[in-house]
Amino acid sequence: MNVLITNIGRRGYLVDFIKAEESFCGQVFVADCDETASGLYSNHDGRFLLPRPVEEEARYVAELLSLCRQQAVDIVIPVIDPEIYLLSKHKELFAKERILVVVSDFGVLETCCSKLKMNDFLRKNGFDVVPTFTGIRQLEAAHAGGTIDFPVFIKPVNGSGSSNCGAVHSLEELNASFREQMLIQPLLTGDEYGVDVFNDSSGMPVRLVIKKKLAMRSGETDKAVTVFHEQIHSLALRLAKALKHFGPLDLDIIVEQGRLYVIDMNPRLGGGYPATHLAGVDFLQLLMQMHGGTDPAPEFNNYKAGLLTMKDIGIKTCITRS
Amino acid sequence: MNVLITNIGRRGYLVDFIKAEESFCGQVFVADCDETASGLYSNHDGRFLLPRPVEEEARYVAELLSLCRQQAVDIVIPVIDPEIYLLSKHKELFAKERILVVVSDFGVLETCCSKLKMNDFLRKNGFDVVPTFTGIRQLEAAHAGGTIDFPVFIKPVNGSGSSNCGAVHSLEELNASFREQMLIQPLLTGDEYGVDVFNDSSGMPVRLVIKKKLAMRSGETDKAVTVFHEQIHSLALRLAKALKHFGPLDLDIIVEQGRLYVIDMNPRLGGGYPATHLAGVDFLQLLMQMHGGTDPAPEFNNYKAGLLTMKDIGIKTCITRS
Repeated sequence: MNVLITNIGRRGYLVDFIKAEESFCGQVFVADCDETASGLYSNHDGRFLLPRPVEEEARYVAELLSLCRQQAVDIVIPVIDPEIYLLSKHKELFAKERILVVVSDFGVLETCCSKLKMNDFLRKNGFDVVPTFTGIRQLEAAHAGGTIDFPVFIKPVNGSGSSNCGAVHSLEELNASFREQMLIQPLLTGDEYGVDVFNDSSGMPVRLVIKKKLAMRSGETDKAVTVFHEQIHSLALRLAKALKHFGPLDLDIIVEQGRLYVIDMNPRLGGGYPATHLAGVDFLQLLMQMHGGTDPAPEFNNYKAGLLTMKDIGIKTCITRS
Repeated sequence: MNVLITNIGRRGYLVDFIKAEESFCGQVFVADCDETASGLYSNHDGRFLLPRPVEEEARYVAELLSLCRQQAVDIVIPVIDPEIYLLSKHKELFAKERILVVVSDFGVLETCCSKLKMNDFLRKNGFDVVPTFTGIRQLEAAHAGGTIDFPVFIKPVNGSGSSNCGAVHSLEELNASFREQMLIQPLLTGDEYGVDVFNDSSGMPVRLVIKKKLAMRSGETDKAVTVFHEQIHSLALRLAKALKHFGPLDLDIIVEQGRLYVIDMNPRLGGGYPATHLAGVDFLQLLMQMHGGTDPAPEFNNYKAGLLTMKDIGIKTCITRS
């Protein structure tokens, strides 16, 4: 069983996770479009430069498929948003050659990418939705009506990580910061949780790990502690059954005055996956099992609670010239 | 020779650097005020929680001194700005017990902390200085006179990292973002370099490594490549002789239209130190040598050029409850 992690970026730890699994006896390859991606210098069995996926879609898919054939790759794990979109459209091409591309159907990705579509999905399925305004006038009317007050929070309609997100403290500041394709929401200040939910090939949840976030950094979870939380558990199960994603889903949930608000859904291995993995729930192994044709049986609350996971500075080097 | 790194934060790599040195035969201890600091879970010989340095100065110094006695610490290496200020005022107390606290004199720190004092120092010593405005009216006058145009860059007078820094594209945005104790400068877009200059105990430079920055993240150098650069080399030497800091100094320099502008001076081990160390210049060993009473002889251009250093995601865990 050979695995290829594409656009690995800084996540060299995924290579270590796969190799640490005793039963694993294949090779782990890594690829990126940037030769200075630190993951290319991790403990892999081969690194490859591929074209930039979005700018050169056809060439990217052709070169990726060719690489998979050449290295007898069984599973491709993309970990960044732009690439999962693209590969979702082409996964059948890989499936024909028994190569599993770990990505959900395109409809699932569309629901997750746009915060407006995500809100529609949540509303339709009976979940609480954060009040959302798509323009300054709409916000002003609500503000005049007393239904929202500053500070508010602005974010892009389609966004990943925390880029261009931020608290805004006045109408003046809002006018200066607000751009097209942004949303305005109340600033939520409750505890934030990350949930990793793994669905089997029929779109049914089989694993679930809840982590309370203690600190963020560059839009990624920096420190988190695994917890059990009944309300979040049942919400996440219900959501995963409705969404019917494939494999990993990384949910962000804020608990505000007793209500649970889903604020982000990423149908891929998220930046907070290390905590899930190290708490004893190995999504990577499940994917290999599924490639072998067996869907895992559901098993919940099977993780170590109270595990604090902290991201650290690792360092990789390479010689660029002599 | 025992070493203590205080408020280690995410820099567990410093422990590895010291221990990787063949001639090192002591212990490396780590301390932080936050029990979730990942560096506390590095490959150390003992971790200690200390009070928050700034909020509880007297208690901090007393507990640190007591810890040093108890663990027979020879060298204390503080790595964050608030702490170097504080320890600079108390270093003699430690020196009396033959404990070397790696920090410059208070006057040096004052010059480095305030961008206005730094500019005075640079001007007085004949270096180029980035045009700097301390208020919106002053900026408006210069803008009307045609000496500066948007976008401009705002930053705190006293600041570390990139917090509250940013490009500002209009007077409207400036009015919304500008606060007391901020500076306005032209937005420089030239290549940025990090320079580590090590001074001996008489304040004379003995080592110097230049790195071209390729990428930043959360205000720290994320990717850099070591280079030789004659102009920067002679500027940094001249600056270090004028500043007379002790031990490490981390300089940030932008080359804009052929002129060199010093934009930041940090008289401590900076976030970009790993590149210097891995290129073959070991500041940590020099400090141990100096504690032993021998100042190192000057040696320049003794590093590996073309070494690309990338920061990666490392992961540490601990159990917080059973």
